[in-house]
Amino acid sequence: MSNPILLAPGPVQLHPEVQKILAHPMIHHRTPEFDQILSHALSGLKFLFQTKQPVLMHTSTGSGAMESALVNLLNPGDEVLAIVSGKFGERWAEMAEIFGGKVSRLNVAWGSGVHAEDVRTYLKNNPQIKIVMTQACETSTATVHDIKLLGEIVSETEALLLVDGITAVGAYPMPMDAYKIDALIAGSQKGIMLPTGLSFICLSEKAWAKAQTAKTPRYYFDLRKELKANQNGETLFSSPVPLVKSLEYVLSMIQKTGFDLHFKEIKRRADFTRAIGQKMGLTLYSKSPSDSVTAFNLPADIKGVELRAHLEKKYFVTVMGGQDQAKGKILRLGHMGYILDADMINTMELLALALADFNFNVNPADVRRMSEAWLKENPL
Amino acid sequence: MSNPILLAPGPVQLHPEVQKILAHPMIHHRTPEFDQILSHALSGLKFLFQTKQPVLMHTSTGSGAMESALVNLLNPGDEVLAIVSGKFGERWAEMAEIFGGKVSRLNVAWGSGVHAEDVRTYLKNNPQIKIVMTQACETSTATVHDIKLLGEIVSETEALLLVDGITAVGAYPMPMDAYKIDALIAGSQKGIMLPTGLSFICLSEKAWAKAQTAKTPRYYFDLRKELKANQNGETLFSSPVPLVKSLEYVLSMIQKTGFDLHFKEIKRRADFTRAIGQKMGLTLYSKSPSDSVTAFNLPADIKGVELRAHLEKKYFVTVMGGQDQAKGKILRLGHMGYILDADMINTMELLALALADFNFNVNPADVRRMSEAWLKENPL
Repeated sequence: MSNPILLAPGPVQLHPEVQKILAHPMIHHRTPEFDQILSHALSGLKFLFQTKQPVLMHTSTGSGAMESALVNLLNPGDEVLAIVSGKFGERWAEMAEIFGGKVSRLNVAWGSGVHAEDVRTYLKNNPQIKIVMTQACETSTATVHDIKLLGEIVSETEALLLVDGITAVGAYPMPMDAYKIDALIAGSQKGIMLPTGLSFICLSEKAWAKAQTAKTPRYYFDLRKELKANQNGETLFSSPVPLVKSLEYVLSMIQKTGFDLHFKEIKRRADFTRAIGQKMGLTLYSKSPSDSVTAFNLPADIKGVELRAHLEKKYFVTVMGGQDQAKGKILRLGHMGYILDADMINTMELLALALADFNFNVNPADVRRMSEAWLKENPL
Repeated sequence: MSNPILLAPGPVQLHPEVQKILAHPMIHHRTPEFDQILSHALSGLKFLFQTKQPVLMHTSTGSGAMESALVNLLNPGDEVLAIVSGKFGERWAEMAEIFGGKVSRLNVAWGSGVHAEDVRTYLKNNPQIKIVMTQACETSTATVHDIKLLGEIVSETEALLLVDGITAVGAYPMPMDAYKIDALIAGSQKGIMLPTGLSFICLSEKAWAKAQTAKTPRYYFDLRKELKANQNGETLFSSPVPLVKSLEYVLSMIQKTGFDLHFKEIKRRADFTRAIGQKMGLTLYSKSPSDSVTAFNLPADIKGVELRAHLEKKYFVTVMGGQDQAKGKILRLGHMGYILDADMINTMELLALALADFNFNVNPADVRRMSEAWLKENPL
């Protein structure tokens, strides 16, 4: 039996070196040693976001950064266009309403990318829109939107483009400045390959101008205060030391590897998973699939919740099922984090075994052979 | 040379077992394995807070829980009495203003506990006060307030008593229900002996009634949503798995040890530090000293910022200096976390060496002998 495997779209498997760093004796966040680590991590984040702007961090989950973007950039009563294509789009739209936004939803069928020209038309007809919000990758559907095109469209208006890059940043290219994004957020337990607990946010100059005066009350997520603290070499509140140390490690590792190879590694996992899954007889759920996570439709007679639990209990492989309207109908496999070829091969074989237990017509030994062959034919 | 020593009032030295747990391979937070860990941790928190009410957690620093208490319990325009006796009291008062509270400050001299009868009088003359806020221990001054008496006083009124127990819960008795506290908050990196990254909050029935209807907008810190998620066996957002696993370990360790012995251990460290520090010729800064942290006045001719840096750089001992009006004037030594007798002896000797380097009249070898003798005469 192989080791347990975690191939979820976050949290992800940790690099062994990160596990070691997490176990280090504690140091205080007000020490010269930590000051240097924080400084490296903050400049590494600018590299990761491909931006000239400062990238700030919160001790929170990704949802905290989603809230941060809103409380720093929204005035109560502002009109907001929310692209809603899954669970996380719905969450962000709901948040914007709670903080006083007048939200119009551009609903996109689950599993589809938004038709960016619809956004152009909407903004032309509704020039009063102050904020456009979208996921880069909607985690619940494993689907990407065309952020580059959305950036071109929104940047021609007065509106700000807020992008939830939680399942994108670090997993595939998402250059903040080149794509003309006004607020880009990320979370630690996805493409940044750490445990849950840190979130990140970066604002454009256009967004900073609004953040200075926006009237939504804010303290914990106040980016003006956080920026000032960073300029003094600190975070605004106590730093989560083990996470920041690990962050520095991961960012320097990505810098050393280089974006090309780093993203190629993740894309290869996505390509592999899609190829083998389809050879097994599964179909892709998303019409605009992400390199960070792949969703497969399950055969109608297989209950997804039971299959996922069975795969975990009998074969020690954790992947995710569907959420809300996709609950029980899909399986989602993540491609981020520390993943060996052996993990991918074992996952596909064990998934085949689990499917066979549910009377799906698949030959696990064939799946292993196909998997090994694919990886050999498609080296890094 | 001994190992580096961290005796700050948070973050604290970690138990070796916690270091191991932090290094475990990642598991997903939506698994039966994690469900059980979370369930144990949540019930352990009720034990720690000595309450029948649910204790909820946020992925945030302690300041996040300070904000949580306010956004869940404050209506814009509510009158608030803020007991301000140091930096953290000032922070909380400022937060309450930002979220729309009409804040009156009861200023207490730094280093003194509040005169609780002043609060009684104030509430008698100002029955419109909706919230009274105080630190249990003001970390910046190492000073405790009489929360039991404040609880008696405030519970006789319509107001809610909000207590920042960040440097108290887990360090000395702070029984939520018996003290009639309406909102008690804690942070992970102090008496709970974990890295920074989790905060905790517990509301009384009286507070829950207000939380259901309070009009301050909230999402990330919405305790109604968090409670519902907990009742479904989850946290509202992605759980920071390594911290929750470590939390479960620490709480079960405290339960096994028992409160009496656990608190006695910490009190012994405080008693030791005060006794030896005074024998060395230092004086106590606080008139109402805490068992969680001790602050010493420094001789007027010693620059505290330099002494602290010297102690760290030359002797590898990290303690904290003063903040704001006490900056450069005091040293603060923490008593929480995983601390061996050897750490305490070494700290006092190394502090003496550092003081001697600054021409303070002290004999480090004598300090070591006194320290060893004190601990032998005062066993656990």
